[in-house]
Amino acid sequence: MIKDKKADIKTANDIEKKVENSVGIIEKKFVTFDKEEQSLLLDCGEILFPYTLAYETYGKLNALKDNVILICHALTGDSHAAGFYKIDDRKPGWWDMMIGPGKAFDTEKYFVICVNVLGGCMGSEGPSSVNFKTGKRYCLTFPQITIKDIVKSQRMLLNYLGIEKVLCVTGGSMGGMQALQWMIDYPESTQTAILFATTARMSAENIAFHSIGRKAILSDPNWNNGDYYDSKPPDAGLAVARMLAHITYLSGEILKQKFDRKLQDKKNYSFGFDTDFQVESYLLHQGERFVQRFDANSYLYITKAMDYFDLSAEVSGKLIPAFKKVKTKTVVVSFTSDWLFPTPMSKAIVNALKSQNVDVTFCEIETNRGHDAFLLEKEKLTQLVKGFLSNV
Amino acid sequence: MIKDKKADIKTANDIEKKVENSVGIIEKKFVTFDKEEQSLLLDCGEILFPYTLAYETYGKLNALKDNVILICHALTGDSHAAGFYKIDDRKPGWWDMMIGPGKAFDTEKYFVICVNVLGGCMGSEGPSSVNFKTGKRYCLTFPQITIKDIVKSQRMLLNYLGIEKVLCVTGGSMGGMQALQWMIDYPESTQTAILFATTARMSAENIAFHSIGRKAILSDPNWNNGDYYDSKPPDAGLAVARMLAHITYLSGEILKQKFDRKLQDKKNYSFGFDTDFQVESYLLHQGERFVQRFDANSYLYITKAMDYFDLSAEVSGKLIPAFKKVKTKTVVVSFTSDWLFPTPMSKAIVNALKSQNVDVTFCEIETNRGHDAFLLEKEKLTQLVKGFLSNV
Repeated sequence: MIKDKKADIKTANDIEKKVENSVGIIEKKFVTFDKEEQSLLLDCGEILFPYTLAYETYGKLNALKDNVILICHALTGDSHAAGFYKIDDRKPGWWDMMIGPGKAFDTEKYFVICVNVLGGCMGSEGPSSVNFKTGKRYCLTFPQITIKDIVKSQRMLLNYLGIEKVLCVTGGSMGGMQALQWMIDYPESTQTAILFATTARMSAENIAFHSIGRKAILSDPNWNNGDYYDSKPPDAGLAVARMLAHITYLSGEILKQKFDRKLQDKKNYSFGFDTDFQVESYLLHQGERFVQRFDANSYLYITKAMDYFDLSAEVSGKLIPAFKKVKTKTVVVSFTSDWLFPTPMSKAIVNALKSQNVDVTFCEIETNRGHDAFLLEKEKLTQLVKGFLSNV
Repeated sequence: MIKDKKADIKTANDIEKKVENSVGIIEKKFVTFDKEEQSLLLDCGEILFPYTLAYETYGKLNALKDNVILICHALTGDSHAAGFYKIDDRKPGWWDMMIGPGKAFDTEKYFVICVNVLGGCMGSEGPSSVNFKTGKRYCLTFPQITIKDIVKSQRMLLNYLGIEKVLCVTGGSMGGMQALQWMIDYPESTQTAILFATTARMSAENIAFHSIGRKAILSDPNWNNGDYYDSKPPDAGLAVARMLAHITYLSGEILKQKFDRKLQDKKNYSFGFDTDFQVESYLLHQGERFVQRFDANSYLYITKAMDYFDLSAEVSGKLIPAFKKVKTKTVVVSFTSDWLFPTPMSKAIVNALKSQNVDVTFCEIETNRGHDAFLLEKEKLTQLVKGFLSNV
């Protein structure tokens, strides 16, 4: 086969350019906490010990150690928030649009950290990890974790890195939940927070959608009660869960704009159960891609952690007292077309923080991109974050 | 076992009362169209012949045969719109609140007909029916039907009953689609129509939700390419499809009001994959009940028929010309909290009908009950329908 040299050169240039605009080639780091004082007493009552966390850092920690930005990822995210692992990676980290030299979270100023959540499947201890004590994978013997547990493990990592205070903790969706938990559990260590498209309390509808995704996984015969690592994984169930979740991340408007009723490869209806519409094909593709990168058990554990999230639960059902000790200067951001965590959920956070005299700003961004807007609205979010951080 | 006689008497009274307020004990009827001129040329190009339709009638056809109300059911409905099959039936037909003596569709005035849709599983010809020509169940050899085909078969039934004109055709959701198709295909026969919570064109988001439900069924190993009638049916997949669809029929508000974050039978979280929240238990129950009454293949065929529904498709993508020949006096009703077929979809119908000088009225009903409001808002709908029919 004769190679097209021109095409090769163009690609090489492109690669160079894309790496130049990013934090460059980075490496995932791992730390295993194996000292007894590092053991985690979880909300469920069990003790997790030892455990590994996977994380990445971008930029440099300054001498005062006061330039730390902690990025918290969403349900299916990971520690790879920016840059590339290899020069020929097709895509950078999941929030590369926000993290890098000159970007919103400017790596020439800040030391940015992102940790894979406990219960995850991208390097941190989770159900697919090998239990040190048994030499076997945890599967369902992994303890159920909560957002509070996830944050506790992040605190442990920051201790390990010698970092006491965080300049800013931020994230969208479940990432925002972790930021809220930081504000409550470590008020002295959390100087500022930027919360995107999140909630202080998972709603009945939120739980309902998650529970159907879980039901799809649990019903897949390949799930095998969580013990599938040496056999076929429950890809079909996990794909259905992802397809469903994916719709909740988009808006009806954007689906209309992108796909409307456009047909797939055909001029006419199939009059069968083939994929007729582009939107069907798109969703199937989302499901197929997802099962290649994500573990079904982790999906069960993390959605459950989200469902358990209710900051008002421990303080007699009211949100205001939950924020009693909060001192964090906060921006709360919602998106007009987000129907999963819609604006009233953000406003509930803002109102409760205001009632505690916390310095809080609210911003609703006009967009048709739905819940996923926090991963997409580069210009608007960059402007907002830069403005906020320049005043800190 | 000693029977509690008092309890029996109370129940008997209750039964008497409930039957009194309804059309009473009714019988499902069947007709098989086996004359060649009754064969159905379907949109897919195939000819369906012979075929059976299941239907019910309530009230009496008058001498002029001009008091006919045709009720069209939604995705998972059937011909049993009102009354009871047996004195001890736990529940009446699905629209009993609207059909009966003195009710909105007053059976002392009108002759009410409801037909199970083609492709269904409650008596009309569908994938679970035995193909007369082979002596075996159709399974996937049943031809894919459309809303137009369903309406064509209803027209055939009305011919059989000697009825030329319909005083009013009505239905919610997919029932409204059939009513719209009646208006277009049989303009001379369709005097008035009342459309609830419907659309002239399934949206990308509508299709997306359906395609995930189908994916859940198709992924269930028990589905066996549609051939499961002599083995275990794909209950798990069908249950997931139903659970998902069910959420789209409700509103976030009503889920909050009914369930919020209330726990199921427990004071604390299970910290496992048990059912923690009442909303989860409710959805699981919806799924379990549904698989007892509905056929998975019918679910595939009917959701696809809905997805294909786009009145503008044959007239260069515009809705207005689709209504060119329509003469039907129409009321279009939407519900404020319906996010599946939201108000703009109803308004699109109203605007297009108005552009064709059709006598059309629009009504948006304030409710927190979501898409299902057409099955629940008894007082508001009764008032609206009575008012409309009294002026016909």
